[in-house]
Amino acid sequence: MSNQPLKNDLLLRALLREPTSRTPVWVMRQAGRYLPEYRELRARAGSFINLMSTPELACEVTLQPVKRFPLDAAILFSDILTIPAAMGLGLHFVEGEGPNFEHPVRDAAAVGKLGVPDPDMELRYVLDAVRLIRAELAGRVPLIGFAGSPWTLACYMVEGGASKEFARIKGMLYAEPACLHQLLELLTRSIILYLNAQIAAGAQAVMLFDTWGGVLTGSAYREFSLRYMQAVISQLQRESQGRKVPVILFTKGGSVWLESMAESGADALGIDWTLELGDARRRVNGKVALQGNMDPAALFASPERIREEVQNVLHSYGKGAGHVFNLGHGITPGVKPEHAAAMIAAVHELSPAFHK
Amino acid sequence: MSNQPLKNDLLLRALLREPTSRTPVWVMRQAGRYLPEYRELRARAGSFINLMSTPELACEVTLQPVKRFPLDAAILFSDILTIPAAMGLGLHFVEGEGPNFEHPVRDAAAVGKLGVPDPDMELRYVLDAVRLIRAELAGRVPLIGFAGSPWTLACYMVEGGASKEFARIKGMLYAEPACLHQLLELLTRSIILYLNAQIAAGAQAVMLFDTWGGVLTGSAYREFSLRYMQAVISQLQRESQGRKVPVILFTKGGSVWLESMAESGADALGIDWTLELGDARRRVNGKVALQGNMDPAALFASPERIREEVQNVLHSYGKGAGHVFNLGHGITPGVKPEHAAAMIAAVHELSPAFHK
Repeated sequence: MSNQPLKNDLLLRALLREPTSRTPVWVMRQAGRYLPEYRELRARAGSFINLMSTPELACEVTLQPVKRFPLDAAILFSDILTIPAAMGLGLHFVEGEGPNFEHPVRDAAAVGKLGVPDPDMELRYVLDAVRLIRAELAGRVPLIGFAGSPWTLACYMVEGGASKEFARIKGMLYAEPACLHQLLELLTRSIILYLNAQIAAGAQAVMLFDTWGGVLTGSAYREFSLRYMQAVISQLQRESQGRKVPVILFTKGGSVWLESMAESGADALGIDWTLELGDARRRVNGKVALQGNMDPAALFASPERIREEVQNVLHSYGKGAGHVFNLGHGITPGVKPEHAAAMIAAVHELSPAFHK
Repeated sequence: MSNQPLKNDLLLRALLREPTSRTPVWVMRQAGRYLPEYRELRARAGSFINLMSTPELACEVTLQPVKRFPLDAAILFSDILTIPAAMGLGLHFVEGEGPNFEHPVRDAAAVGKLGVPDPDMELRYVLDAVRLIRAELAGRVPLIGFAGSPWTLACYMVEGGASKEFARIKGMLYAEPACLHQLLELLTRSIILYLNAQIAAGAQAVMLFDTWGGVLTGSAYREFSLRYMQAVISQLQRESQGRKVPVILFTKGGSVWLESMAESGADALGIDWTLELGDARRRVNGKVALQGNMDPAALFASPERIREEVQNVLHSYGKGAGHVFNLGHGITPGVKPEHAAAMIAAVHELSPAFHK
């Protein structure tokens, strides 16, 4: 792993609620389709799978937004389904449909056949990408590693792809909860190994993406999603090169359960745009930092209007430490790169006033 | 309109937080694809548009679930897009894709060309269906009329159909708010006329479906959705045949804004399954009745497990008036009718204990 000292530690400090001179900013899906240089590389790579599974290409994509914009973090370019893919489910991407598995997991027999992937073997391409990125970043900004949450991976594995109603996995949840728990435990063990391997390879912060936790009832969220994320967080290697490795937890649509999420052991919570950040801050009551939460659609407005929205988000969080500026969800493919630039510039310009 | 006295007024009483002997129950999308008799009639009708726009057929579909199950309400079988269709946008349904408009509304010029439909002319088929249904119901249970919220109709009109990211309408919201407000005002006036015409034709309660309010930020929800629903509610004819006509408001994904919704003038709020009903009840603090909120996916479990979930929902609301049992969203097409029957039977059996 690169031993170059970290030149910009704003992200790591803010995630641990330590004082900073301004609010750090990065963007979920910052490496992706809204950037022409990404689309060009994607076309050259031939397929999305080739792009994300070739360390040199994944490294190049990860660095693209960091080269273009004054961002305070890089996030590993990868897919949340690397673990199920490593389990042999046959991941493939259908244009316009998203991810699909050839071999979905729909009963106890199928769960029983699954093993925990060895990150150094089946997921080595991800770790190689992490090492390359760290070397290329040369300490410029920290690198965020990530994984899907156990529940979210289980959703894709049971449904066989993206879903609207989650009828299959919820059918399992209500009718065969023991089978689902077995799957979630296996995924929890896999994610712990995977994230610890990312940290050992150089990830300086990690994020758990619970994309589908928000489709559950409150009690099912605690039993089938949050509990397993807590188990993951409690077993992560939380130090690297003498610094703490902060953990960010993001449950899309989970604003209603914020108080429970603040007890998960995560250092920071990702907040979607439906909640006002000031309300979220009051509800978590100093227990965690907050990351978010500008409406991604605000990037369709003019640069002047974007600047206003940045000010609204900063003002809603208010003065003091513990805020990482981000969108409330991934950046939308149709957004103009200049509009992302306007947002990032506005954070640089407007946020110091909130740290005096 | 039918003058037969109402034999079962549990729904109307519960919506107004008056005491009842048990909790009334109906099911969002109770008339629909999970019923074989619906699928048969749908096939005979040739197209969904024909089915919903022929009063005799819409009446038959509306009555199907009421004949099969001991439900406490019928809900008009129609579509939330009748108003934009009446405005001449060219509504059509693409199999597997949902509704589409030939002429989406994307700028001030297109908004300027729209007029308020006269319910007695362009929407007469809906009112004829309401009158027929009331005659056929003969006072057995009350009939609920409905409309999409101004914001939800605007979403479909601007996007041209269903959407995942709502890039076009949110682009308009941030970049041309005045144009969007003009569209929302026009829709508000149209919905007031439409719902008042449904009430005059015989609807005994009405529901506003704000399917897409949940994609907004908190402040945008208040400015672009809630405010217009309040305007609708304040101008409804709230009495029919000597009884109050209760209004139910349902914003999918709106749990985070429940306190604001409780101030809307609605008598009851629909609650999706992400929030525990007991928490919702504490938050609205006696201002409104609550309708919901079993996870629709629980209907994939066994009848015994369904009964447990019914008990959980009843117990979460707790003792006393003001609860209408329902799912937290529309019933899923793949559900077995016997499972819906098990849920309804469990409400009949288990709820009296909460009304002693």
